[in-house]
Amino acid sequence: MAIPHVRPGDVVDVLPLAAGLPVARSVALFKSDDLELMRLVLPAGKSLPPHQVAGDFVIQCVEGAIEVAAQGRHQVLQAGQLLYLPGGVAHSVTALQDASALVTVALRKP
Amino acid sequence: MAIPHVRPGDVVDVLPLAAGLPVARSVALFKSDDLELMRLVLPAGKSLPPHQVAGDFVIQCVEGAIEVAAQGRHQVLQAGQLLYLPGGVAHSVTALQDASALVTVALRKP
Repeated sequence: MAIPHVRPGDVVDVLPLAAGLPVARSVALFKSDDLELMRLVLPAGKSLPPHQVAGDFVIQCVEGAIEVAAQGRHQVLQAGQLLYLPGGVAHSVTALQDASALVTVALRKP
Repeated sequence: MAIPHVRPGDVVDVLPLAAGLPVARSVALFKSDDLELMRLVLPAGKSLPPHQVAGDFVIQCVEGAIEVAAQGRHQVLQAGQLLYLPGGVAHSVTALQDASALVTVALRKP
């Protein structure tokens, strides 16, 4: 479900989806000049295969648990934990439990 | 308390400080090429007076409640809520209760 028209200063809820998690989908929350924010929803056992984004990014686990593989490391994020990675670094994300996470990406201008 | 040497891929805890909140201080969590992440700690009634940063930024309330004033709006963020604002916009932040918040700032290159 998209959240349309989130504008500067609008309040956005990023609490755990909890009972709503099993039926939730990944959603773009906003895109500004400099930043893009998404809520990633991954059911247990599902992965985002290796991919990369241009700018540095932060992935913050909101609920459940995810494993982030990048640069030869496999890091597990529980709710309330985050990590950042540089732009251009291939990474994959696997849900160890039903999970949602906030992903904040810096948008690099050409 | 600073968290020194958080590097790409390092796991950072951003859970509520809870019992530790009254003695916590604001801290820079990391600064990458594109992004800067801070945990802001504000006791109830305290404010950051109007200020601005160059790049777009997100402020996410982790615990307590804060009021963000910018662009003629006064928005209250409870735990699990966030908003973004464009770079260059003067804003102030007031804690309505003892609060901590994550602030993610896009670093604009000259």
